[in-house]
Amino acid sequence: MSGLSLGSFVASSLSTAEVEAAERLYGGLADDVRRLVDVVIRTEVDAGRVEEARALVRRAEELLAEEAKAGPAGIHFNHEGRSWNWGNAVVGVRNAVAPPLRLARGEDGVVRTDAELGAAYEGPPGCVHGGVSALMLDHLMGETASAGHTRMTVTGTLTLRYATPLPLGPVWLRAWIEEEAGRKITVLAQIGPGDPEAGAAPAIEAQGLFIVPRWAQGDAAPPGVGSLD
Amino acid sequence: MSGLSLGSFVASSLSTAEVEAAERLYGGLADDVRRLVDVVIRTEVDAGRVEEARALVRRAEELLAEEAKAGPAGIHFNHEGRSWNWGNAVVGVRNAVAPPLRLARGEDGVVRTDAELGAAYEGPPGCVHGGVSALMLDHLMGETASAGHTRMTVTGTLTLRYATPLPLGPVWLRAWIEEEAGRKITVLAQIGPGDPEAGAAPAIEAQGLFIVPRWAQGDAAPPGVGSLD
Repeated sequence: MSGLSLGSFVASSLSTAEVEAAERLYGGLADDVRRLVDVVIRTEVDAGRVEEARALVRRAEELLAEEAKAGPAGIHFNHEGRSWNWGNAVVGVRNAVAPPLRLARGEDGVVRTDAELGAAYEGPPGCVHGGVSALMLDHLMGETASAGHTRMTVTGTLTLRYATPLPLGPVWLRAWIEEEAGRKITVLAQIGPGDPEAGAAPAIEAQGLFIVPRWAQGDAAPPGVGSLD
Repeated sequence: MSGLSLGSFVASSLSTAEVEAAERLYGGLADDVRRLVDVVIRTEVDAGRVEEARALVRRAEELLAEEAKAGPAGIHFNHEGRSWNWGNAVVGVRNAVAPPLRLARGEDGVVRTDAELGAAYEGPPGCVHGGVSALMLDHLMGETASAGHTRMTVTGTLTLRYATPLPLGPVWLRAWIEEEAGRKITVLAQIGPGDPEAGAAPAIEAQGLFIVPRWAQGDAAPPGVGSLD
């Protein structure tokens, strides 16, 4: 594979209603697996119960593998302008690695999200891994650069400034477009602890340069896809 | 919580042999859960089998929750100079979110690792999420700055340059110290596709400034802990 092209995206005949039903079905399973991931880090049960749990997990895996796609989920879109990336490491609703974030674009142009980050996102003791913040900020900033999924963008450069440790628990993120010049879009973003309304200072600030690839310019791009993070 | 201090690290009475036995027991369980996470993204079984799998996953979670720590795993160390961070989002052996990476420091001072990244780490179709690369690079660079766990470091700034998409599958990473000045350490790093010996150009290059916190200077720091990513 040498790169990405319009052919990397899969046109689907699923209706948006069918997509949403599938998200409820498989997304509920992923939610259960997120809770399992968390307790696997925290459990102190003895070897016998670990073996019992392993047998249950393996049986679940076998059941789900009876019919499964061979490769990753990819990015799909339908004729209604809906797109979905179920395996995405940040927003994928079927991916238990993803928190998953749900992004909202305000009338002020700021894209916001929040998350409750538990034991699986730890770096320093009791704190969010600095790289997990980078992962979430990169995704949020790419989506912001895509201006509400009206254009495709890829990350060019990303700079993160770590000011203070970010405790595990509730976090908020926000991003906005600072400048646009041709195919280049500069995005700023922040992540901080607690309730977004409480006004805590950001723990990390980020600046990113995002680029609209030449092949994704104009009407040829699939509708509703947005950022290529 | 206002920050980190030496008190954030837990002195443990476990011997290194006991730590390694626990890693085999709970690490094996985490390996099973990694395979489950992967198939949850790829499965196409019907609603009946999804419900059956959910019941198995919930039963496993209940079993493991019968005795469990309340909070995150934290960073522990023992009197033999061994430290462990089982919940770490990049290297935590009990964390199914982590690939997990295993780092090796060469005689040339370069810290290397590789990974096989599947469906759970996707961003662009068929490719590693740019933020996942940032997550892994941040961790690798922090460990590199810690000079083989002989000092503690925190990330100051991190800059990533994305050159080409990085396909899912085998990837290699390497990092080295470029410069040191007092408590400031500059680290460079790369991530690229395929076999590390095959000589493919890096897809992403990173530069990081890492800092030894004042409170972690000297002999007061717990032995063997290293980077605070």
